[in-house]
Amino acid sequence: MPAILPIVLLCGLVSLVYAAWATRSVLSADQGNARMQEIAGAIREGAQAYLARQYTTIAMVGVVVLALTWWLLSVHAAIGFLIGSVLSGLAGFIGMNVSVRANVRTAQAASRSLSAGLDIAFKSGAITGMLVAGLALLGVAGYFYVLTGHQGYAPSDRVVIDSLVSLGFGASLISIFARLGGGIFTKGADVGGDLVGKVEAGIPEDDPRNPATIADNVGDNVGDCAGMAADLFETYAVTVVATMVLGAILFVGQPVLESVMLYPLAICGACILTSIVGTFFVRLGRNGSIMGALYKGLWVTTILSIAGLALATWATVGFGEVATASNGLAINGLNLFACGVVGLVVTGLIVWITEYYTGIGFRPVRSISQASVSGHGTNVIQGLAVSLESTALPTIVIVAGIISTFQLAGLYGTGIAVTAMLGVAGMIVALDAFGPVTDNAGGIAEMAGLPADVRKSTDALDAVGNTTKAVTKGYAIGSAGLGALVLFAAYSYDLQYFVGEANAGRGFSYFQGVQPDFALTNPYVVVGLLLGGLIPFLFGGIAMTAVGRAASSVVEEVRRQFREKPGIMAGTERPDYARAVDLLTKAAIKEMVVPSLLPVLAPLAVYFGVLLIADKSQAFSALGAMLLGVIVTGIFVAISMTSGGGAWDNAKKSFEDGFVDSAGTRHMKGSEAHKSSVTGDTVGDPYKDTAGPAVNPAIKITNIVALLLLAVLSHS
Amino acid sequence: MPAILPIVLLCGLVSLVYAAWATRSVLSADQGNARMQEIAGAIREGAQAYLARQYTTIAMVGVVVLALTWWLLSVHAAIGFLIGSVLSGLAGFIGMNVSVRANVRTAQAASRSLSAGLDIAFKSGAITGMLVAGLALLGVAGYFYVLTGHQGYAPSDRVVIDSLVSLGFGASLISIFARLGGGIFTKGADVGGDLVGKVEAGIPEDDPRNPATIADNVGDNVGDCAGMAADLFETYAVTVVATMVLGAILFVGQPVLESVMLYPLAICGACILTSIVGTFFVRLGRNGSIMGALYKGLWVTTILSIAGLALATWATVGFGEVATASNGLAINGLNLFACGVVGLVVTGLIVWITEYYTGIGFRPVRSISQASVSGHGTNVIQGLAVSLESTALPTIVIVAGIISTFQLAGLYGTGIAVTAMLGVAGMIVALDAFGPVTDNAGGIAEMAGLPADVRKSTDALDAVGNTTKAVTKGYAIGSAGLGALVLFAAYSYDLQYFVGEANAGRGFSYFQGVQPDFALTNPYVVVGLLLGGLIPFLFGGIAMTAVGRAASSVVEEVRRQFREKPGIMAGTERPDYARAVDLLTKAAIKEMVVPSLLPVLAPLAVYFGVLLIADKSQAFSALGAMLLGVIVTGIFVAISMTSGGGAWDNAKKSFEDGFVDSAGTRHMKGSEAHKSSVTGDTVGDPYKDTAGPAVNPAIKITNIVALLLLAVLSHS
Repeated sequence: MPAILPIVLLCGLVSLVYAAWATRSVLSADQGNARMQEIAGAIREGAQAYLARQYTTIAMVGVVVLALTWWLLSVHAAIGFLIGSVLSGLAGFIGMNVSVRANVRTAQAASRSLSAGLDIAFKSGAITGMLVAGLALLGVAGYFYVLTGHQGYAPSDRVVIDSLVSLGFGASLISIFARLGGGIFTKGADVGGDLVGKVEAGIPEDDPRNPATIADNVGDNVGDCAGMAADLFETYAVTVVATMVLGAILFVGQPVLESVMLYPLAICGACILTSIVGTFFVRLGRNGSIMGALYKGLWVTTILSIAGLALATWATVGFGEVATASNGLAINGLNLFACGVVGLVVTGLIVWITEYYTGIGFRPVRSISQASVSGHGTNVIQGLAVSLESTALPTIVIVAGIISTFQLAGLYGTGIAVTAMLGVAGMIVALDAFGPVTDNAGGIAEMAGLPADVRKSTDALDAVGNTTKAVTKGYAIGSAGLGALVLFAAYSYDLQYFVGEANAGRGFSYFQGVQPDFALTNPYVVVGLLLGGLIPFLFGGIAMTAVGRAASSVVEEVRRQFREKPGIMAGTERPDYARAVDLLTKAAIKEMVVPSLLPVLAPLAVYFGVLLIADKSQAFSALGAMLLGVIVTGIFVAISMTSGGGAWDNAKKSFEDGFVDSAGTRHMKGSEAHKSSVTGDTVGDPYKDTAGPAVNPAIKITNIVALLLLAVLSHS
Repeated sequence: MPAILPIVLLCGLVSLVYAAWATRSVLSADQGNARMQEIAGAIREGAQAYLARQYTTIAMVGVVVLALTWWLLSVHAAIGFLIGSVLSGLAGFIGMNVSVRANVRTAQAASRSLSAGLDIAFKSGAITGMLVAGLALLGVAGYFYVLTGHQGYAPSDRVVIDSLVSLGFGASLISIFARLGGGIFTKGADVGGDLVGKVEAGIPEDDPRNPATIADNVGDNVGDCAGMAADLFETYAVTVVATMVLGAILFVGQPVLESVMLYPLAICGACILTSIVGTFFVRLGRNGSIMGALYKGLWVTTILSIAGLALATWATVGFGEVATASNGLAINGLNLFACGVVGLVVTGLIVWITEYYTGIGFRPVRSISQASVSGHGTNVIQGLAVSLESTALPTIVIVAGIISTFQLAGLYGTGIAVTAMLGVAGMIVALDAFGPVTDNAGGIAEMAGLPADVRKSTDALDAVGNTTKAVTKGYAIGSAGLGALVLFAAYSYDLQYFVGEANAGRGFSYFQGVQPDFALTNPYVVVGLLLGGLIPFLFGGIAMTAVGRAASSVVEEVRRQFREKPGIMAGTERPDYARAVDLLTKAAIKEMVVPSLLPVLAPLAVYFGVLLIADKSQAFSALGAMLLGVIVTGIFVAISMTSGGGAWDNAKKSFEDGFVDSAGTRHMKGSEAHKSSVTGDTVGDPYKDTAGPAVNPAIKITNIVALLLLAVLSHS
């Protein structure tokens, strides 16, 4: 066992130490007055109750899958599944538990200064970020260490590969449920609460008289914090696993095999350290720009990561000639390093493009604000136009990334680029997870009746959160796009391996004589592309309906409370917050199951469906095409939804300081134009926070299920 | 020259005779009073002025392309281009000119009875329908007749193939401009007029005091009639050409070659006759159901077409063994007939599914109506959910169509299925083109102050038009999905042919040594899929923005007129209708050029871009993948936009007779729920009438340009 693996594990542990230190630091801050603590307590209870029920439901599905994995594959695979799912759940659980404690402390700190508020909120986000990256790395590297060290398997042994893929599957299964369930809860509360509160009753957001207001704040935590953490954990784990598997297949039987499998782990280890360093550079500068402060941390991380990348390259594959891959391409360490840099550049460009499309002050958001002046309809039309258009530049960046990395070092090079992209996930998640904390802080400030300038500070933090949230989603889906080739290659090479062994009479008899044809001239490939392409659309449609339904039930509940307790509006009676939370919990859990199972079961349906009509070769061809089909439409659906939603949200915010239209008229909060922009924001909510981000785990899980299917069939 | 070709030409001529007869019959109807004639005159003038300008602009692009075709290919190809573009333009021109005369006559007839109104409106639609099918068939079959008969070329000669593809290109180029330009005009007028009229000034739709009202009615004709006609003309021509080209390639050097190329033409000839017979069955039954009357015609056509298909099979390829295609598949006439039946079944299923998703009374539209009760935001969310979900069933039908036809008779069988689908285009277009006539008739009735029951009749006709419009779009895009394989096969086999000849030293030296790799494992294929997949999104985004911008300029113009002429609202001053028409004409012409050129230039950009980085083999691979990429996302984007838009429109209409929500409350026109539904309708307008339908020609033109590029390179 080379010395690098323990060092990687150490890097993972460092991130946990950072998280522990930051948690202490957050918890030691002032919790504010009794009223604030009471509100924060209600949010905390609701969030914990939701997460407990969500995890219980997932556990029921999970136990079945665990048993299946054990029965169909091996005990090692089952343990891998357990590690992936438990650690993913843990990252979300701890992250959210810090978040629901940081919110009230941020509100209290913001009453001192913007800088103090930013400090606590960002630290809380960084805890989630470092837990996501650290636990994912520890899971993958640790299990790899146990399997190849203690258990003595060769790194490219099928047991190792199957176990790592199962680990990815565990993470994926958690993440699709968590993303969807959390997304339905948070947007059901947000949309429903706004409709009946802001629009009907005419009370401001986070007004304590609105019975859905606690649910809204709970939603921020279970959706934007725990759900997002599970999503990024999965993206991280699956990417690293896929790159390792690809390395194992491409360099099978060569002496460099182990280095090639360790290289992605080393990159992640180095980038965790640079991410931690980066967090210390997030400080409000003289110009008071919050975005500037966050970007300082991100840029420091990115630039240091280039050095980290160099170190990781040096420590594993070296800068010289590495080996000739099984597909005949000579791989060179310097080129692999360059691929890693491409991954970081893609990250930077996607951040930049997302900010352009969702930030106040740029053309896209301004065009939506301007369209709001003519009415609700034109606001939505322009928002949809922006959402469709926003897919263009990221796609071109991803295409450039695919071409350049492939030319530098083949498919493995593309894998390294995606690994480097995900390497800085700790920092990116930190930027995102601070959003729900500030959102909550604003809500607590409002409900506790803190002075207006506190709310102003939390609002300023919250506005930035809209963009950073969109950035994370663009980043996650961008990595999926760039990683598409890696995931598909893992499938096709794996299949090729089984077929080759079977034809040579070395077991895997199921695959004997199979001749997959992945050419576009094969109709089953077109069928696979179309059926794969359908998943994000159908999935998105079901998710949007679920949010609409959850929101409607909130509207009815709030109307009922207003009707039955007339004292609420007068401020003499306390609304029943818990009922709204409970109602949403039930709705979200119920609604998340069917759409979550769609991408899990679709690959099986396609494989066995085509098998029934044609033969194994065509069934494997259609399934492979499905994996690319889900990415080809998924990337556009996800980017358009997340960027479009972010743009709508900030177009609404642009009215808060008054939006000056093209004719020179200033439209303030409460104007007709502002009301139109609220409609767009409402539409954008499930777009950007439920359907859009859940497409990413849906893509991944389709791919992972296909890989697992191969493994299961190889055992039959 | 076999006897069947003159018979096909005769069928084409019969459709022109039908059109002439029906035109006489429409024109002989009563034109109503002087006020009605004055209004109709204004609509007619505006529509003619727009079409003249649009054709002038297209002609400028067209002349350049014509010269290029001549220079780069041949005089025959240039003539083919001219035939395709001129006939496409002619179908739209004549159809629209009848439509702008039928509108006022329909209004007058509707004052007698619903049945009389339906008769004139449907006859007017049928004229456009038969012109589209007849002229397209005459163009393709006639030019094929001239080239293979008079000019003496062998049916599979490159000159013949290039010329037919150029004919398709001419039709495509017209259609993309006409669909987009017309779509921007009509929805700019509709959205802008509604915003300032219905929402701001509180006057009903088609109120003569609204300065945009004539423009709105002009738009129905230039968009829904002329634009749609050009689109379907192109779909028809390109499908027939692609199936013929595929036949020529698959059966090259075999005696059946000519029959195999004539078979699609014979199918179209037979189906034109069955469509004409079908039109005579459109009669209002005892139950007064307009949809029922239209469906009677459609079902008669479809069932008769099975017999027509049998006849066409018998007259060309026969029911026995046909030949063994160059790819080794034995083709059987009975199986080809079965493929044609599959095409008709797919048509029927798509009609049925589209009606389910867009018709009043079914779950999807009801769910949008219900969501309107909670507000603008939930209406739009549910509409988007329905639009995403509505892609599922059509995709599954298309997939089933691909698999069954391919298993029956290979790719050529799929081509025959699409040909049979398009065979009944005359009837489908008739169902669609009657919509703008009734819409106009309603407008004229309103503006001329006819009694309320006349408006009621025209409204009833108009409501049905919403669904039939969605049906046509679903049908056009469905045929594109099923035809995807045919178009891609035409490209890949064509390329294979050139490479084979070049490697054998028989000319086409450009292709020497080219080895395209269309496997999904090739990164350039993934790049092509992603870039192709981007086109519908980017294109849709630009189109939506264009409508938003055109609508805003209408809003400003109408506001200006209301401000400067206070007498308008009092009814003492006449609005300046012509200014709004003129403004929209300029806006639509200006806005249509850039997005129209996107799918024309994208294939060239991808080919030469990849050529610059890699080599010819990869450039051809990426280009081929792009052709499938544009279909894989295009089909979902187009179906979701057109079905979603239709559902929103009818959800709004459901409030006109009062919508009873889940709590039992009835919401009438003018209620808050109705206002919310108007927002959804506004959003759906550019979705279903501009961006969505224009995706279909965008897909086709990308494919045709790629085929032409091959032809051009073969000359270099």
